[in-house]
Amino acid sequence: MTTVPATISAELAGCDCPPGPVIDDVAAQDVARVFKALGDPTRVKLLSMIVANSSGEMCVCDLTDPVGLSQPTVSHHLRLLADAGLVVREQRGRWAYYRPTTGALSDAVGALIAAAS
Amino acid sequence: MTTVPATISAELAGCDCPPGPVIDDVAAQDVARVFKALGDPTRVKLLSMIVANSSGEMCVCDLTDPVGLSQPTVSHHLRLLADAGLVVREQRGRWAYYRPTTGALSDAVGALIAAAS
Repeated sequence: MTTVPATISAELAGCDCPPGPVIDDVAAQDVARVFKALGDPTRVKLLSMIVANSSGEMCVCDLTDPVGLSQPTVSHHLRLLADAGLVVREQRGRWAYYRPTTGALSDAVGALIAAAS
Repeated sequence: MTTVPATISAELAGCDCPPGPVIDDVAAQDVARVFKALGDPTRVKLLSMIVANSSGEMCVCDLTDPVGLSQPTVSHHLRLLADAGLVVREQRGRWAYYRPTTGALSDAVGALIAAAS
């Protein structure tokens, strides 16, 4: 397959479908960072557990057993979720507690589809 | 950091916060697959363009220029979006056309937070 400049290739294809507004590069980086953090089944499970917990937060000590991984590994996954803004970490005594943020995922989805609205 | 079994560590921490319902392993894999496909800024831009296009679909020929990549590279990214169920590909003559699916992303988000509802 050869590379054809878009302007030429659109004429060749007879396209009459000009692109609409597009997410900008900075926003695309931010959105991709959030989704990348969720591109792993362990992190999906961890976030779903934190979201589901009726107390509004979960201790790392309660998250290791359900995913069957060591605490350092779980803490690594949680750090990636926190770096993406999906959870907030609070150290209390010996343990770290995690609670979900309200906006990071919905903001990412919203930015992705904002151009359509 | 040392690994402490969760049951013991929960007692040590004095946690009274039992985990709620959790997304199952198969669903977590499916959800992670969708999010992983969006864990790249180029694919975020491509999907936002396809979603935004007023005609409801976009020719690959119109997607190369905005992201500044070769057509083979763009086609590779589009294949990953299609494999995750985020777009549907249709070959018409020389060019492939892509349209967004309605459910893959909202289903993934829904599955992730279903345990909370």
